[in-house]
Amino acid sequence: MALKKKPVNGMRDILPEEAYLRDYVTNVIKETYRSFGFTPIETPLLEEIGNLSNDQGGENEKLIFKVLKRGEKLDLSGDVREEDIVDYGIRYDLTVPLSRFFANNENDLKKPFKALQIGPVFRADRPQKGRYREFTQCDIDIIGEPSYLAECELITATSKALSALSFKGFKIIINDRRLLTGMAKYAGFPDDGLSKLFIILDKLDKIGLSGVRDELIESGFSKDSIEKYLSLFEALSGKEDVKEALLILEEKMGDSFPKDAGDDLSRISKIVQSEDVKEADFRLVFDPTLVRGMGYYTGPVFEIRIEELSISCGGGGRYDNMVGLFSGHPTPACGFSIGFERIILLLKERGFKIPGEGKKIAILLDKGLSEDELMEAYKEAAKLRKEGNTVIVERLQKNKKFQKEILTNEGYSEVIEKWQNR
Amino acid sequence: MALKKKPVNGMRDILPEEAYLRDYVTNVIKETYRSFGFTPIETPLLEEIGNLSNDQGGENEKLIFKVLKRGEKLDLSGDVREEDIVDYGIRYDLTVPLSRFFANNENDLKKPFKALQIGPVFRADRPQKGRYREFTQCDIDIIGEPSYLAECELITATSKALSALSFKGFKIIINDRRLLTGMAKYAGFPDDGLSKLFIILDKLDKIGLSGVRDELIESGFSKDSIEKYLSLFEALSGKEDVKEALLILEEKMGDSFPKDAGDDLSRISKIVQSEDVKEADFRLVFDPTLVRGMGYYTGPVFEIRIEELSISCGGGGRYDNMVGLFSGHPTPACGFSIGFERIILLLKERGFKIPGEGKKIAILLDKGLSEDELMEAYKEAAKLRKEGNTVIVERLQKNKKFQKEILTNEGYSEVIEKWQNR
Repeated sequence: MALKKKPVNGMRDILPEEAYLRDYVTNVIKETYRSFGFTPIETPLLEEIGNLSNDQGGENEKLIFKVLKRGEKLDLSGDVREEDIVDYGIRYDLTVPLSRFFANNENDLKKPFKALQIGPVFRADRPQKGRYREFTQCDIDIIGEPSYLAECELITATSKALSALSFKGFKIIINDRRLLTGMAKYAGFPDDGLSKLFIILDKLDKIGLSGVRDELIESGFSKDSIEKYLSLFEALSGKEDVKEALLILEEKMGDSFPKDAGDDLSRISKIVQSEDVKEADFRLVFDPTLVRGMGYYTGPVFEIRIEELSISCGGGGRYDNMVGLFSGHPTPACGFSIGFERIILLLKERGFKIPGEGKKIAILLDKGLSEDELMEAYKEAAKLRKEGNTVIVERLQKNKKFQKEILTNEGYSEVIEKWQNR
Repeated sequence: MALKKKPVNGMRDILPEEAYLRDYVTNVIKETYRSFGFTPIETPLLEEIGNLSNDQGGENEKLIFKVLKRGEKLDLSGDVREEDIVDYGIRYDLTVPLSRFFANNENDLKKPFKALQIGPVFRADRPQKGRYREFTQCDIDIIGEPSYLAECELITATSKALSALSFKGFKIIINDRRLLTGMAKYAGFPDDGLSKLFIILDKLDKIGLSGVRDELIESGFSKDSIEKYLSLFEALSGKEDVKEALLILEEKMGDSFPKDAGDDLSRISKIVQSEDVKEADFRLVFDPTLVRGMGYYTGPVFEIRIEELSISCGGGGRYDNMVGLFSGHPTPACGFSIGFERIILLLKERGFKIPGEGKKIAILLDKGLSEDELMEAYKEAAKLRKEGNTVIVERLQKNKKFQKEILTNEGYSEVIEKWQNR
């Protein structure tokens, strides 16, 4: 038998119990975001391969599933190169498609445009536990708003969505690309060393200050720069309050302090944490080591941290240069993505129950029922459904006890047996 | 600029207005199907190429988007053949993935298994108006129920879903593969001519009886068979009532009449149209020319017809042999698919309005607002949202009149302007 039962490597079948949960979470998120005026859109799963390999996607560009050309366009004779036989790729995120979408439909969209997109993305990563090659992303983006108003909306809406899903006491950590760059320049690092610097800085929570120092020395950075740089992080150690941390930085950095970034972060912090504005139990926390991998970020960056998971449960930031690559003119943009798969994982681990589902009733039919008796059973099912219940009609099985056990496990609290009139 | 704004050929961007409608329709369908005990599942978009090219998918197998192998597994040196450089394909329907899913997870699923699957499928068809290369399918299937109980459930649930979407007075046409075969054999057609015969029969509504006669003669079938066959259709002409049509057929065909198919169809017809069972305004109608293209059907087949569209708005049938190809043992199955894209098209054309959305309020901010004034605006937005409204907060634009016009078009019935205190 040539057919394979297993899903392809790194992808998975989602069974009813999880599928119910995913539908519920999707609906809660969509409802919340809509109440903030985010409007749903859909984009194709395939994009021109050139759009996906545009150097904005960082490592993800190496993980693209590529689609073979078809029909006459596919020429396999002679020496072939990959770029000659491929035309499309499967998307690895929702940000590239959104940027293209905005450029393509700009004239038909309300500005600023507030987009909500939930859908699967694909990365040909090495599969490992909890990491799949197909997974759902859940993004909101505001395109066309240059000020911190966008960040305030994104953080308020996302924290409310998490709250509606029963998450409490979580953190959203925040930093700013302009601060990251400003701090590096203040310490005297050269422009062409910044990517390497940030990759090492990103490991601070894992390897500590001394580990970072060692790696920076190993990478050949100047000792003076390293010490000056690390003294900033020492001074900030344990200072989670945005305002307090920024004051410390401003004092230490003097004229090198990027005032625009500082102003944005303190305004965002004040607004989103105001008691009457915030609709969730969370704290906005400054983290000077937050980098976020993608090359395209230009301003504030943020990430969700939920206690049980040490890793990120979502994140985002401002990317003012990306949309312009498609539209041909400068277009500010900012987005926030909820780590859908991790939220589902957490809810499953917590034994989360979907609230308020109606009663589930099973009507079981004996084999010997006459056509009229069958009809009666169907009528009863229709009536019970009209009253708001979930009703299944199925044959009584030989092992009745086992059948009822399974129904009970599936949440059917009422079983009606229909026997032949004798 | 190397980046392209347009979606890839034959696929499309879905703007907010349609995306709202699609979300609404999806939710109505899911809620209805759940009340019948159908449970949601999700399957990967990619399948092993061998699973997709299994000869069950008919023409669709020629339309597969194929995925290039990656990394070391991809060897482009020397003469390459397509089958050596491809490992996965993008699914062209939801039935093949469902069959694989069932075989893979059989031990963890309740039997009979009632599956609900909504998701995109892909066919590299020649793009044309209203026909896309990526489109959404919406399927329910019952696996493991060998009798007409499955058909009754599928038809009742699907007609109720259409009713919940405001469709009235539609038809579900029904036929049976066993009847199709029985009628052909009664007329004396050879077994190996049946596929060709059915392809021609399928055109009857377009080319009429005389057109079908001409094509059958041209194809070299015996004149006696053709006349005997067409006399059946003449006798059935205008007879839409299932019971009446079956009586005519039984009388004409005598012992050649497939009694099992006749019994199934008349029972299905009686149950699903009973006043207290049916939860929709529709008629079940017999159509002896209904073939349905897929090779895998084995029993009853059905199709939705909505007045404005002469073409099918969905369909399905019994396919008792397909799941067994994956599971290795006989497994009866029956499914019904709603033509999601056509339903959306019809609702758009009818100017369908989504019922019961809350009030939409826009709060517009003057540029000169102080931080405290901004804060007040955000507090008001939060309060209004808690009361169940959709609230957006955005900058007052220079052309205020134009901004308000757009907001009105978007359904924002209330606009609150926030000006600097002077």
